[in-house]
Amino acid sequence: MTDTSLSMEHPPLLYAGLSDPSPENRTIRLLRSHRSIRAYYPTPLPDGTLDAIIAAAQQAPTSSNMQAYSIIAVQDPQRKQELMTLCSGQKFIAQCPLFLVFCADLSRLHYVCARQGYRYRAEHINMLIVACCDAQLACQNAAIAAESMGLGTVMVGDIRRRPREVAALLELPRYVFATVGLCIGYAATDPGIKPRLPRKVILHRETYSAEHLEEGLEEYDRAMIARGIYRKPFPIELVEEGAEERYTLETYGWTEHTARRVAELSHEERKGSFITFLREQGFPCE
Amino acid sequence: MTDTSLSMEHPPLLYAGLSDPSPENRTIRLLRSHRSIRAYYPTPLPDGTLDAIIAAAQQAPTSSNMQAYSIIAVQDPQRKQELMTLCSGQKFIAQCPLFLVFCADLSRLHYVCARQGYRYRAEHINMLIVACCDAQLACQNAAIAAESMGLGTVMVGDIRRRPREVAALLELPRYVFATVGLCIGYAATDPGIKPRLPRKVILHRETYSAEHLEEGLEEYDRAMIARGIYRKPFPIELVEEGAEERYTLETYGWTEHTARRVAELSHEERKGSFITFLREQGFPCE
Repeated sequence: MTDTSLSMEHPPLLYAGLSDPSPENRTIRLLRSHRSIRAYYPTPLPDGTLDAIIAAAQQAPTSSNMQAYSIIAVQDPQRKQELMTLCSGQKFIAQCPLFLVFCADLSRLHYVCARQGYRYRAEHINMLIVACCDAQLACQNAAIAAESMGLGTVMVGDIRRRPREVAALLELPRYVFATVGLCIGYAATDPGIKPRLPRKVILHRETYSAEHLEEGLEEYDRAMIARGIYRKPFPIELVEEGAEERYTLETYGWTEHTARRVAELSHEERKGSFITFLREQGFPCE
Repeated sequence: MTDTSLSMEHPPLLYAGLSDPSPENRTIRLLRSHRSIRAYYPTPLPDGTLDAIIAAAQQAPTSSNMQAYSIIAVQDPQRKQELMTLCSGQKFIAQCPLFLVFCADLSRLHYVCARQGYRYRAEHINMLIVACCDAQLACQNAAIAAESMGLGTVMVGDIRRRPREVAALLELPRYVFATVGLCIGYAATDPGIKPRLPRKVILHRETYSAEHLEEGLEEYDRAMIARGIYRKPFPIELVEEGAEERYTLETYGWTEHTARRVAELSHEERKGSFITFLREQGFPCE
């Protein structure tokens, strides 16, 4: 470049032919149109679909290029049925033609370390986070690739509900566990876009601020109630006295729904159980 | 639909006008073209860029719609400089015009629970994973949105290197911590696409299999050496005797590089320290 000042005012763009400087370009509109699909036609996916999805997933960023994740592609009806049972009975797992399981995978790191004659020293919780993050970045790319082809997707965090059984079914070795599932297929329903919290709640400038939180929650509750997103109150075993009467469908929004979720008694059972599994599986949480 | 069999053979596609059934569509080619950019022009981003990136990030999937993350947009030169220092001195953090910090955020869940009069019971490590996952999914959408506009990005996991100092600088309250940073700006260099592990290493059919691992590692090492990706051996304090002689640039590939990374003595210091921070910050690891 001969003229640096010019090149800094109008620097070159990356991804020639694939990018478009407009903030309303097609990719951004696709990302903003995401909805989770919870019913699928059984129609198989066209040839080349899985390859394209995996290629996109693999090019996602990964911490220090460690690629600390694996993807299990499940298409066998019997295995999908069993996974459905292990994931709180969510029917769409059995319905969709392709179920991808994104695993945190430290087994390759252990393997290469032994192979090269070193002692593996990364025995701390940061590696659990690294592997979970790598798996999510790949999963999000896979979802976008599928959606860009007009397919429906939904992520399944309940793959962590019965982690030992999932590990057994998928024959996961030590240092590997399932972090998230991804259903892919032709959408049989379209619930439309679910509104998110107002931007002022999620986005902070320079430093964290809860200044707009209460105002944002009120706006969001109104929006969710107006759209009838929560069609019935989320049941918890223990609601404060009179709560069921206090919250009708007209007043039951995200705030009450989400509060009940984190107040569920069943959380007591999860204390200690997932971390025990993680440790057994070779993921140090120290 | 009157003809179900027809609709199942050719089911309707989602995202009309934004999707394209070709496995080589523009979005997939963009995802497959990702490269991490480590030098930026200081040129500010055009109006509307941040809005578009945040809108895309917010529409990413989120566990049970809990939206357990926050984004801090850092543009102040002094603050970027300080973050650079806290992130192992990676200069591009100070260079890029926009640095986004994606935080795991359980503070809103605690807030709504107290606000609605319930007791927060989700005191287990699964919530750490939920919040980290939500933050990564949003971060990946933000990165893709930026790249779709022709901008460069790089994720910064080193934001977790000095977590207390980062939390202090960004004024993160209890129940919030920084999981990953994202530099966004006009690329001043283009390193090209970094090849990933062969698909047969990452992708498994129906059940996990390490059958192709060794073969895949050998292929990958050859590819990385041919491209000169690792221009000098990764230094570790403790290499086995003769290792420096055994591995020259001609033989030093991903396997040796990655083995040295996980064998670093500095991992010893990280044991116990990050989890102590997480617990102090209100993230139970039980």
